[in-house]
Amino acid sequence: MVLRVDSDRMRADFEALAEIGGTPEGGVARTTFSDAHFEARAWFLERGRAAGLATRVDSAANHSVVLPARDPEARTLMLGSHLDSVRRGGRYDGALGVLCALEVLRSVQDAGLELPLALEAVDFTDEEGTLIGTLGSWALTGELSAEILAAPRGGRDLLLAELERVGLSEHDLLSARRDPASLAGFLELHIEQGPVLERADTAIGIVTGIIGSSSFLIVFEGDARHAGTTPMDARRDAALGAAAFVLGVRETVTRDFPGCVATVGDIAIEPGSFNVVPGRARLRMECRSLDAAELDALEHALAVRAKVAADQWGLEVDVQRAGRWDPARTDERVRAAFTDAAGALGLSTMELPSGAGHDAQALARVTPSGMVFVPSLGGVSHDPTEHTAWKDCVNGANVLLGATVVLARSLQNGSII
Amino acid sequence: MVLRVDSDRMRADFEALAEIGGTPEGGVARTTFSDAHFEARAWFLERGRAAGLATRVDSAANHSVVLPARDPEARTLMLGSHLDSVRRGGRYDGALGVLCALEVLRSVQDAGLELPLALEAVDFTDEEGTLIGTLGSWALTGELSAEILAAPRGGRDLLLAELERVGLSEHDLLSARRDPASLAGFLELHIEQGPVLERADTAIGIVTGIIGSSSFLIVFEGDARHAGTTPMDARRDAALGAAAFVLGVRETVTRDFPGCVATVGDIAIEPGSFNVVPGRARLRMECRSLDAAELDALEHALAVRAKVAADQWGLEVDVQRAGRWDPARTDERVRAAFTDAAGALGLSTMELPSGAGHDAQALARVTPSGMVFVPSLGGVSHDPTEHTAWKDCVNGANVLLGATVVLARSLQNGSII
Repeated sequence: MVLRVDSDRMRADFEALAEIGGTPEGGVARTTFSDAHFEARAWFLERGRAAGLATRVDSAANHSVVLPARDPEARTLMLGSHLDSVRRGGRYDGALGVLCALEVLRSVQDAGLELPLALEAVDFTDEEGTLIGTLGSWALTGELSAEILAAPRGGRDLLLAELERVGLSEHDLLSARRDPASLAGFLELHIEQGPVLERADTAIGIVTGIIGSSSFLIVFEGDARHAGTTPMDARRDAALGAAAFVLGVRETVTRDFPGCVATVGDIAIEPGSFNVVPGRARLRMECRSLDAAELDALEHALAVRAKVAADQWGLEVDVQRAGRWDPARTDERVRAAFTDAAGALGLSTMELPSGAGHDAQALARVTPSGMVFVPSLGGVSHDPTEHTAWKDCVNGANVLLGATVVLARSLQNGSII
Repeated sequence: MVLRVDSDRMRADFEALAEIGGTPEGGVARTTFSDAHFEARAWFLERGRAAGLATRVDSAANHSVVLPARDPEARTLMLGSHLDSVRRGGRYDGALGVLCALEVLRSVQDAGLELPLALEAVDFTDEEGTLIGTLGSWALTGELSAEILAAPRGGRDLLLAELERVGLSEHDLLSARRDPASLAGFLELHIEQGPVLERADTAIGIVTGIIGSSSFLIVFEGDARHAGTTPMDARRDAALGAAAFVLGVRETVTRDFPGCVATVGDIAIEPGSFNVVPGRARLRMECRSLDAAELDALEHALAVRAKVAADQWGLEVDVQRAGRWDPARTDERVRAAFTDAAGALGLSTMELPSGAGHDAQALARVTPSGMVFVPSLGGVSHDPTEHTAWKDCVNGANVLLGATVVLARSLQNGSII
């Protein structure tokens, strides 16, 4: 008999969770350490306690609900994702993965199964990067470094202010490492956040690997001059360099790096008024690849484009790295367990890479890890209109449950890395 | 004998004025209705009173120092500019013109000349556009309209809040119109704010006309999508439209409209983060021409470029006018008076248009008006490093004085328009 989750219980929880930080547009606003974020995390632990499960919060503020094994020395199979959101986020991103993990623990417990591993449903801190991005999973795996803390995505001042406000220290974050030998594996369910599964009319995506990404701050510098009195041929207009670079990034990635993506996500002009020629343009750019060497080559090609754009318009340019997440491969046995579980449920599957970063990217470096995707309506994510059909959510939860039961047995004997 | 201003007195005043709102970088910060702006205006009236001159403040907060004629019914020859500055402005822009006007009144008085016209040195409100731009001169000429008040450059909320804060109403602004029949003319001395006089090694610029300008808010709209999971060929990236437009503006104006300028001075991206494809790009664009029909054609050509850029990248675009200042010709007799006055002083002159907007642009619509320019070091303006050699300032003041004496006599008989 194939074990199944309690769809009604999970749905009631999903609706309750979506209320926390819920916005009039139908999405959620639960940035890291916001009131709504704290409320969601407290709600999550309370739901675990209500089911008779244990809870834990580590020094990086990762929140967990635990179903212990009979053997207190047993290693742990982790399942989970994150409850934080981007500023104008949707209800599914991260939250669905945490809820499905909780539901798997409850379903195993309800079925009276005694597994040889502890199961832990985890809500990682700051996956979305209000402060750093995959902060909690990096901290848990020991990947968080003083270097990352020195140049966080949201700015050093914000990080320090927020840590102080919530009573955490950098030392706390750096102390959250779990011994990899205590972990048996990590499984994450997530919405795809892209259009591939929907277009292929496929229920379950088996993630082959998680794309690596590099981000850069790029500053073009010219001369701020009066826009009325400075002839066109006497200008060093920083916006022209920025514009040439935006189009150049597009050309390079589509022509020379098929399968990769690159994006200029922000442009800020100084001084930024009608009547002053732009003296400075600050750009945020990122690029992604499934292969580390290809990512290196793409980074280099885009830095060259920045220099070419600056030279073309007589500008200076400065290119600073803002972050790098290496690509991660998922574990072959985890992929097989997901595929088998979906097959037992009669669900269609396909293998695909993840174009988004995830907590599993950090976990994959220290323990056998894998991800299962469910379809995103129209590929929309990071938006209040983000949506996944409820049957797809339940299908995903059932695949996660089936794989958990199989993997908890097959991974019991020592680390398999 | 050629009359000359008191260089030492004017210099002492210049240094004292530059202290008001003076910044560590050597510039001034005197945005409209800031404390420093009020202080500068009070200082100006006080310097007039100290010289035994009359003062007046109208309902648009234009501040004036007046040397009356013997005949209380005599019309007025106005001289002046503005004491407000951009946020990080220089010491010369506007302030020099007000000081030279004051110095002309004192010099005429000191020389015991009895002119048949009243002379009025005026400091116009909000020339730089913290709130609206050439607000005081528009109000004085009756050009200020409810339409302009409804969509002010700095935003409607700011305008209303600032008016209330300083005890003014929109009705006050609209009531400040002076009967054109009471005006005999308007003379403005200003720094060039461009490199033309310096490059030509010429002391005095005689302004032929003031360039017209049109400003637009242009919004490109695409889809904000996850920058990792959205394939390059499934994007509607608003930054690509913005970039194509920025380069297109440059191409159109340099290729098809020589002598005109056009500038994209600001680009704001939404949501504006590393990992989201830009869904919206808001641009501030302006274009300028000395000829009203050419300005119409340029506006049209740039609007077409916006549409082409949007179509090229599959975006929507919206083009909204933010302002229009029509070009203004200066009065031939005023130009001749400036040229003659410079000749009598042995100073080199050249005719040139003004690429910047000025209060004289408004005054030229109702009374014979003209401008004299003095050289700007390196063409720099709207910057703390803005500089004009002191001898050039004094030369300009002497030209203004000489032209004032001649014009006060030649313009005495009725309006010459």
